[in-house]
Amino acid sequence: MSVTAAHGFRAAGITAGLKASGTPDLALVVNDGPEHTAAAVFTSNRVVGAPVMWSRQAVKDGVARAVVLNSGGANVCTGPGGFQDAHATAEKVADELGIGAIDVLVGSTGLIGVRLAADKLLAGVPVAVGALSADDAGGQAAATAIMTTDTVPKTAVRTVGTSQGGSFTVGGMAKGAGMLAPALATMLCVITTDAVVDAATADAALRAATRVTFDRVDSDGAMSTSDTVVLMASGASRVTPDLDALTEAVTAICADLARQLVADAEGASHDIAITVTNATSEDAALAVARAVSRSNLVKAAVFGNDPNWGRILSQVGTVPEAVAPFDPAELDVSVNGVMVCKAGGAHEPPEKVDMAAARDVTFTIDLHAGDAEITLWTNDLTHDYVHENSAYSS
Amino acid sequence: MSVTAAHGFRAAGITAGLKASGTPDLALVVNDGPEHTAAAVFTSNRVVGAPVMWSRQAVKDGVARAVVLNSGGANVCTGPGGFQDAHATAEKVADELGIGAIDVLVGSTGLIGVRLAADKLLAGVPVAVGALSADDAGGQAAATAIMTTDTVPKTAVRTVGTSQGGSFTVGGMAKGAGMLAPALATMLCVITTDAVVDAATADAALRAATRVTFDRVDSDGAMSTSDTVVLMASGASRVTPDLDALTEAVTAICADLARQLVADAEGASHDIAITVTNATSEDAALAVARAVSRSNLVKAAVFGNDPNWGRILSQVGTVPEAVAPFDPAELDVSVNGVMVCKAGGAHEPPEKVDMAAARDVTFTIDLHAGDAEITLWTNDLTHDYVHENSAYSS
Repeated sequence: MSVTAAHGFRAAGITAGLKASGTPDLALVVNDGPEHTAAAVFTSNRVVGAPVMWSRQAVKDGVARAVVLNSGGANVCTGPGGFQDAHATAEKVADELGIGAIDVLVGSTGLIGVRLAADKLLAGVPVAVGALSADDAGGQAAATAIMTTDTVPKTAVRTVGTSQGGSFTVGGMAKGAGMLAPALATMLCVITTDAVVDAATADAALRAATRVTFDRVDSDGAMSTSDTVVLMASGASRVTPDLDALTEAVTAICADLARQLVADAEGASHDIAITVTNATSEDAALAVARAVSRSNLVKAAVFGNDPNWGRILSQVGTVPEAVAPFDPAELDVSVNGVMVCKAGGAHEPPEKVDMAAARDVTFTIDLHAGDAEITLWTNDLTHDYVHENSAYSS
Repeated sequence: MSVTAAHGFRAAGITAGLKASGTPDLALVVNDGPEHTAAAVFTSNRVVGAPVMWSRQAVKDGVARAVVLNSGGANVCTGPGGFQDAHATAEKVADELGIGAIDVLVGSTGLIGVRLAADKLLAGVPVAVGALSADDAGGQAAATAIMTTDTVPKTAVRTVGTSQGGSFTVGGMAKGAGMLAPALATMLCVITTDAVVDAATADAALRAATRVTFDRVDSDGAMSTSDTVVLMASGASRVTPDLDALTEAVTAICADLARQLVADAEGASHDIAITVTNATSEDAALAVARAVSRSNLVKAAVFGNDPNWGRILSQVGTVPEAVAPFDPAELDVSVNGVMVCKAGGAHEPPEKVDMAAARDVTFTIDLHAGDAEITLWTNDLTHDYVHENSAYSS
């Protein structure tokens, strides 16, 4: 179950031939309504792909009837020709579905700087339209077709009762395994719901959800050029949740998918949850967590199952006081619940920390400066990460 | 030749027994005058070692007669006891030399969070004093004793004639192979000169020199807690260079040592010079270069000898417009002189770039936005880097 779990949606995933591997590479998600509300958030990178340029414009009116996504090429840094390819893809989908191209969003992932095989992509569109299905298989096929170095498709579903009676469903799919960083982990993500939602509410719910989920995944510090998260609402449930209820459900889906991205990050052997407590603000806590998550020395130590709190403290100390006030002599650091550093110095012996037993590792950094708290997710730095990212272009 | 090349200095390097390896770990550099001018710059990390806390105070009057440095322990996050150890080390050196402790600077490098074997360190001081020598061997022994994961000692010397006649010499030594990042590469560095220099001139020359040398090395993005660069002037040459001449000579020594640090960075197989041209300001150029230097994807690609300009452009795009104005559609990128990206898109085929032939790799990123230019140095991300930094605590 994924994007087809909510009523009013069909999906497909097929092989258009964009990938040398011959695995599925073209996904289509269609909103059959009765409503066609849509919202989207995109990468904040200044270098963006043609699909992002197209979709930013197309979603501005708060309406979308379909999203077409391909792996096998990011269509980034491809000039006017690349933009034409994205536009032509939307037109082709629109023609096949009998809708307007401006209601078709486009997302692409793969290598930067290479033109797509547009003929194959366009020829694949009617095949995808023909394969559209409202059942589980359609959603699963779409989730599979957007994979690049992902080892598993990522999907999530929640059905939520409302205080007014009735229930609505939210489902989603995502891909992303490298270039996971703030202002959206690198990823394509489509979320569908059968709730009745107006465009402003959809936009507010999606922004609130991504801010505390995908924006708090920082696997390798590399912000993508193509990040796109789309929310489409069909209204088919006839249930109208309030903003809080919708936000909560969308956040749950985003959080679930975000954790799946971290769990499948390229070459990683550990998922690291960095919790910063007692900060003066959420932004302060995030800046500290971000500094720690960006340290190759910290990440390599985790790969070596070494609770090296000195490297953690050293990173915490790089955050300017204006950003995150704290007294270095008051910092506590726990790794997997063992307080290895207390008041800025050694405390429990590192030998008490078992990092080899599980994939999950937790850092808790207590700033003793306020009462704000956040958690950021990252991964360790491994031989496999270096291998995957040096052995071939991606 | 290193810190003893300039007249008026003696140095020693001995084994105090702080390192399990039994290799030299205690260095001493003494300024015999007639003058004892000193300046120093330290890490901007908020978590700093006891030696940095001590030396910041000790150098405030612009006078230092000796610097004592140890490897085998950073004396960071060691509390009041750690500060006492640093203080006691300065006192011991002062007693042995018949000077005041406030004229002795201290520098330490090694593991964070562990108290030094202070008894061994203090017992080593008289041995080091006894070994002091004004000849090459003394300078070389000191440069060797400060090594940690460095594979070779780093030294540099320049003798400079002045327009007024006469000449002065500047010599230096440095250590550092990991945690190389801005606001000083991680390192201990001592520079000596026999020029006649007042404290304000020494400070100005040292800050100007480090800003364009050590501050432009960003090997692995990890700012140390212990970075210290000391300049001592004996006046023994009786030659008084002006600020420009002194700055130029000190900058040459710092640049030479900084390049040696990059060349010996832990696990690296390539040195990468990132030159950003036609930026609106030096700060804008530096922000762009820094963003590229921090990308594990870029660094892993270099390890794989892959001129992956898409990853470079993606990093350039992460710099906010307010920091570095440029048009993404105008960006040119050359790797080893081959323009693989022109006007934001593919240009020369990547196959034309030979990265395997040499350790040095150059990126040139033309922003087409102004006329400022800088070069930042970094390294590639390799299996050996991950191995060195995961296999043991450091």
